[in-house]
Amino acid sequence: MARVHKPVDEHYSEAAAGSRLALGRLLTLVERGGPEADQLSELAHQDTGRAHVVGITGAPGAGKSTLTGQLVHRYVDAGRRPAVLAVDPSSPLTGGAILGDRIRMYDVSEVETGQGAPAPDDMSADRRPFIRSMATRGHSGGLALAVPLAVRLFDAVGYDPVIIETVGVGQVEVDVVGAADTAVVVATPGMGDAVQANKAGLLEVADIFVVNKADRPGANDVRRDLELMLDLSHMTGLDTMERGDADYRPPIVMSSALDGTGAENVIAAIDDHLVYLGQSDRLRRRREHRVRTEVRARLKQALDRRVDDLLATDEGRAMVAKAEQADLSPTEVATALLDILFE
Amino acid sequence: MARVHKPVDEHYSEAAAGSRLALGRLLTLVERGGPEADQLSELAHQDTGRAHVVGITGAPGAGKSTLTGQLVHRYVDAGRRPAVLAVDPSSPLTGGAILGDRIRMYDVSEVETGQGAPAPDDMSADRRPFIRSMATRGHSGGLALAVPLAVRLFDAVGYDPVIIETVGVGQVEVDVVGAADTAVVVATPGMGDAVQANKAGLLEVADIFVVNKADRPGANDVRRDLELMLDLSHMTGLDTMERGDADYRPPIVMSSALDGTGAENVIAAIDDHLVYLGQSDRLRRRREHRVRTEVRARLKQALDRRVDDLLATDEGRAMVAKAEQADLSPTEVATALLDILFE
Repeated sequence: MARVHKPVDEHYSEAAAGSRLALGRLLTLVERGGPEADQLSELAHQDTGRAHVVGITGAPGAGKSTLTGQLVHRYVDAGRRPAVLAVDPSSPLTGGAILGDRIRMYDVSEVETGQGAPAPDDMSADRRPFIRSMATRGHSGGLALAVPLAVRLFDAVGYDPVIIETVGVGQVEVDVVGAADTAVVVATPGMGDAVQANKAGLLEVADIFVVNKADRPGANDVRRDLELMLDLSHMTGLDTMERGDADYRPPIVMSSALDGTGAENVIAAIDDHLVYLGQSDRLRRRREHRVRTEVRARLKQALDRRVDDLLATDEGRAMVAKAEQADLSPTEVATALLDILFE
Repeated sequence: MARVHKPVDEHYSEAAAGSRLALGRLLTLVERGGPEADQLSELAHQDTGRAHVVGITGAPGAGKSTLTGQLVHRYVDAGRRPAVLAVDPSSPLTGGAILGDRIRMYDVSEVETGQGAPAPDDMSADRRPFIRSMATRGHSGGLALAVPLAVRLFDAVGYDPVIIETVGVGQVEVDVVGAADTAVVVATPGMGDAVQANKAGLLEVADIFVVNKADRPGANDVRRDLELMLDLSHMTGLDTMERGDADYRPPIVMSSALDGTGAENVIAAIDDHLVYLGQSDRLRRRREHRVRTEVRARLKQALDRRVDDLLATDEGRAMVAKAEQADLSPTEVATALLDILFE
C-alpha cells in the first residue's frame, strides 16, 4: 500500500537536500498550523541564523511586487539563492492571494511558486528562487505564527536572502516587516500624502525607504516629506531608541521598478544595512527581538484558543448572553469569564 | 481646596445633561483605559441602544473625512444630533491623529472637537455635532476596547447617529467598522484596483459601498469591479451568511464629496439600511454580535496583560532566553510558558 503522507522529518530532510516539492509541502503545513507545524518548528530552529531576512512593505499599488521581482533576478545573477514569502492578509473570499500570485508570476515568469502543479523535482540544490504567497485563513492571528516559521524554514534549508513582501499596511504587516533584519518601506507619488502613507507606524520600523515610480511627478515631494518626517522623529528619538539604533537614519533610495532603474541601489542599501547590523551586537539583538515576538505570538494564540473554547461552553455562552441582554456591562462579563478561565 | 478631579459618575451625569466639556473628559478616560473606563462602561451600558451606529472606512485618501463632514452637516440640518469618532491607528510618534484632527476641523469648521481648549460650556443639550479623534497609544489592542465604549458613551448621552470613521484599512479597522449597525466602505478611482483596495476583508463587512470622487475618470471601472466582486461573493454566499444577511446585496452609491453631490444619496442608503435591519431581528442580532466582540476583546486584553506580566518575571525571561539562544524552539518555549501561566 502506497504511503500517502510522509512524516514531517522526511519532508524536512528532502527540503534541506534541495527538494522544492518537499519545501512546498512543508510550507502548506506551516500555513495550516497545528501539531505538524509545531514539529517542523522544532526541526528547523537549530539550522537557522544564516539568511539575511529582508521585509518589504508599502501601500497597495506602490510597486512592491515588481521591485521584489527585480531584486530576486539580481540576487540570482549574483549567485545568491533568494526566497520570497508574499504575505497577503486578504481573506480567502476575495481570492486576493491567488490573484496576487498570478500577478507575481508575470513579474518573475521563469520561477515557480511552490503552489499548483510542481515542476519536475530534481532533488538537487539549485539556485532558482522560491516564491510563495501566504494568506491568512480568515484569522489575523495566523500570519503572526506562520510567517516567522516559514522564514525560519527557508533559512534552515539554505535560502538567502529571505524576502518577506507584504501587501497591506496594517498592524500585522508592520509587525511582520518590523521583525525582519532589514525593513524596506516602499513609497510612491500620487498615493495621498506621506503622512497618510505612514500612519500605520511604518516610519518606526523602516531601515530603508524606497521612493518607487521615481520618474513620476511628485517623487521629489515624497522624498521631501519622508526627510521631514525623519527629521521630526529623529528629534524625538523615540522611534529609533526602541530598536536600539539611535545613531541610524534610514537612507531614501529613488527607484523606478518598471524599467529596473534603482534596483541595484536598493540592493546596495540592503547590503549596507546588513554591514551596519553586523557592527557591535545589533544583528543579534534584532534576532532576539524576533524570537521574543514569535514566542509572544504563539503564547497569545494558545490563550485565544482557550478563550474560544470557553465561549463555546454553556457557561461561557450564558455569561455573554448577560452582556447581550444588558444585564451586565461587557467589562463585568469579561472579568467574570477571566475568573472562570483561571479558577 | 478646589477639587481637581470629579468622580466619573458626576462627569457622566453632566454629559448626559448635555455638557460637552464633561463628555470630552470622559472620552479621554475611555482612551486611557483602566478602572475609570471600566466604571464608565458599567454606567453607560444601560442607557444604550438608541443611536444608529454607522461605520465609514476606506483606503487613505478616499475622501472619507470630507464625506463624513457633509453627512454631519446634513444630519444637523435634519434635526439630528450626530457624533463622529475618527479612529486613527497611527502611533503617537507620527502625530497622525493630531494632524488628522486639524484637517478634519477644516472640513467641518463650525464644530468643535472636544479636544484642546473647550468652548464655553453651557450645560444644556444642544444640537452641535461632537467630533472626536481617537488614536491608539502605541498598542493596537487599545482601539478594540476604546471604540466600542466610546460609541456606547455617545449613544448613552443622546447622540444619534454615531459615526465611526476609520483612517486605515487594517484588520482593526475592519473589525471596528464591521461591528457598526451599518458599515459604509468608501472606494475611489485611481487608488490601485478594487482587488487591492478590498484585500483587508472590507467586502465582507460592507453594507453600503460609496464610490467617491465619482467625477474622476475611472469611477465607473471601480463600480464595475465592485459589482463583479459582489457577484462572486454572492455566489459563494459565505460573506453574507456570517452576518446573517444572505438576502442582502450592498448598494453602490456614486458620490462626489468635494461639491457634496451624492451625500444625500449616501444618507438615504444609510437610512434604508436601518429600515432593512429593523425587519425581523437583524438589528438585535447585529448588536449582540457587537457586544460579543467587545467581551472577547476585553477578555483577550486581560490575558495579554497576564502574558506581559509573566514575560517580565525572572522565570519568564529565562524561558524566552532559551528560545533566543536556540536551546528550545519558540513553540516549545510558548508551551512551557503556558504551563506556568495556568499552574
